Amino acid sequence: MPNPTAAMLVIGDEILSGRTRDSNMHHLAGQLTARGIDLSEVRVVHDDAVAIVTAVRALSAAYIHVFTCGGIGPTHDDITAEAVARAFDTPIGVRDDARARLQAHYDRQGLELNDARLRMARIPDGAALIDNPVSAAPGFTLSNVHVMAGVPQVFQAMVASVLPTLTGGAPLVSRSLRVPRGEGDIAQPLTDLAEAAPDLSFGSYPFIRHGVFGVNVVVRGEDPGAVDAAIARLAETFPDAVPE
Amino acid sequence: MPNPTAAMLVIGDEILSGRTRDSNMHHLAGQLTARGIDLSEVRVVHDDAVAIVTAVRALSAAYIHVFTCGGIGPTHDDITAEAVARAFDTPIGVRDDARARLQAHYDRQGLELNDARLRMARIPDGAALIDNPVSAAPGFTLSNVHVMAGVPQVFQAMVASVLPTLTGGAPLVSRSLRVPRGEGDIAQPLTDLAEAAPDLSFGSYPFIRHGVFGVNVVVRGEDPGAVDAAIARLAETFPDAVPE
Repeated sequence: MPNPTAAMLVIGDEILSGRTRDSNMHHLAGQLTARGIDLSEVRVVHDDAVAIVTAVRALSAAYIHVFTCGGIGPTHDDITAEAVARAFDTPIGVRDDARARLQAHYDRQGLELNDARLRMARIPDGAALIDNPVSAAPGFTLSNVHVMAGVPQVFQAMVASVLPTLTGGAPLVSRSLRVPRGEGDIAQPLTDLAEAAPDLSFGSYPFIRHGVFGVNVVVRGEDPGAVDAAIARLAETFPDAVPE
Repeated sequence: MPNPTAAMLVIGDEILSGRTRDSNMHHLAGQLTARGIDLSEVRVVHDDAVAIVTAVRALSAAYIHVFTCGGIGPTHDDITAEAVARAFDTPIGVRDDARARLQAHYDRQGLELNDARLRMARIPDGAALIDNPVSAAPGFTLSNVHVMAGVPQVFQAMVASVLPTLTGGAPLVSRSLRVPRGEGDIAQPLTDLAEAAPDLSFGSYPFIRHGVFGVNVVVRGEDPGAVDAAIARLAETFPDAVPE
């Protein structure tokens, strides 16, 4: 059985403007791969209701799981919760369970649960809350969409809350070799090896380091023995290769 | 007149597996913003022909410019050129001008232009070549899609070749302030400021540093004077803020 598929939607003006370099995509990708869930597509869109609704509908229909990050804070540009509710034609409002979490958190800190903060208790009807051990304001799961915060520490904590609840697949094992040659020199032998091992996937990722061309060859598969055997054949074929 | 729009398509198994952290998206986003072109959407897909064709068609129809990165090397998993040709129902084959560039490059290095390397001379009919001063193998522009390499040094060189040929818009000016308060404390005053300056965009990006909550407030707009004035008003409203 193929592994479950997933997509990620980054609501990220700050990524699209070049101000911030993504870290959440990188984190989620590694976590899903380790759990045997195939991150198949990522989209990054503006903090724009139509863009979010369109993407949520498309990704939710196409993949088993969808993870969003960003846009669930207290400010005027935080519109993700409303947009996800709209994508599923679901009503949204301040929910008592979410409000109670915020009230307890701000009471402990001696801060006021003002109108802006109360926006973070707006949860679509029927959604399940996602714990936020960092700053209380919860994420939520509506249908197959997991709505999470954009602040990396909070995002990572929410991923840690959600992932154990999902059915994973067979984790992919991956091993890589660094070959100090141009990609054009290894292409044909690599194709031959890939054809001889159809259950494995062979990726070649060229790089330039200190002005010298090289290739990282990555072998992935579910069977660690088969992956190791392929790496051994690669090392025979390219005696100048080193483990990466 | 609104600024031209753009989208990016990253062909990136290595991004989706979590093996590599993106840098090309971050680079292109900054370059486009500086040129007054609005990067409106990014998609990351597998090295899969159907996924690439589908995304190229959707993005090409929706945005003025599309930039792809990755999958144009010499190995079996480099399928981007064929997929982009297919997206436009355009024939593709080894083209003499591209072959001549590769021949000259490998002759200089005393390397053979073998079958694998010759794959990099496959260019769709009617496409314009994009210079590659790093490793010769060209990118290409077909319709409104600019097809570029994934190796960051080559990608950046190709972006530098293409961008001056595009009509930009008014560059957005952006200034930011770091406010050492929770986002919930600044949400209402920020909304008031945003409503008083409808030509500017106000973004608030919360962070946690050394366990303390804070917010980076970013003001963007085409008129540097208006942006500076808004930043001055923000600094009055939040006397504890510091320029970021």
